[in-house]
Amino acid sequence: MSVIVDGCALCTTPGGEVLYQGAQFRVVLIDDADYPGFCRIIWREHVREMTDLSELDRTLLTEVLWQVEQVVREVMQPEKINLASFGNQVPHLHWHVIPRYADDRHFPAPVWAAPQRAPLPAALQVRHERLAGLRVKMQQRLSRYR
Amino acid sequence: MSVIVDGCALCTTPGGEVLYQGAQFRVVLIDDADYPGFCRIIWREHVREMTDLSELDRTLLTEVLWQVEQVVREVMQPEKINLASFGNQVPHLHWHVIPRYADDRHFPAPVWAAPQRAPLPAALQVRHERLAGLRVKMQQRLSRYR
Repeated sequence: MSVIVDGCALCTTPGGEVLYQGAQFRVVLIDDADYPGFCRIIWREHVREMTDLSELDRTLLTEVLWQVEQVVREVMQPEKINLASFGNQVPHLHWHVIPRYADDRHFPAPVWAAPQRAPLPAALQVRHERLAGLRVKMQQRLSRYR
Repeated sequence: MSVIVDGCALCTTPGGEVLYQGAQFRVVLIDDADYPGFCRIIWREHVREMTDLSELDRTLLTEVLWQVEQVVREVMQPEKINLASFGNQVPHLHWHVIPRYADDRHFPAPVWAAPQRAPLPAALQVRHERLAGLRVKMQQRLSRYR
């Protein structure tokens, strides 16, 4: 059974550039000029919380989360990985995986806090150039997950 | 082997009221007047990322994360659970588990964003009164985790 909720952005739109489409989840790349490599993992069904998933589904989503973190680390070479699952605005289970750098717009604050600086174009350019590799590696690494 | 880093707040201080002390992690309650029930899970060792943990350790920490989410849901009855692991300021693995309500200071934004309103004292009072139950249930539910 598939639960699709009218008016839920994550039920009705991809929510980003799809890097990998599984049967139960997808991984998308967010088009954010300040945060190249910002990925989201979106559960297919309109489920609210991690503890609403079956243990089997939760294990799948969690394993995918670590795989995405690992690929983002390898390709994007961030100072730190930030992980978050909120769903206050869109209560449809999704995870943010964000590569952070000491010179990025909000570091060391979370990306939802007040900006600290304008990022350096040259540093951003280098990171944007890594996205081609991110697309390839994400697809390869996730291909065994349904 | 235990890695303790001088100057790391999470290596050298509890980081909150300890609700449960395991051999490899602790769960603490954060003293935040706006966010009663805000818990953190802190890994004992000074490890940076989830993908730096062994698979066994990561599974333990993840299972504890879902247990803490479940207990916070049951006792605090939030509108939504927020989960996050940043470590930009303190790169020592820890998870935030935050019960969110439609009338809280930042809803629907993350708690690190600009405040939206002053919370209602009566609603906060009800939530603060639930903390005694949270202490008991957290201890009970986590007692099987080392």
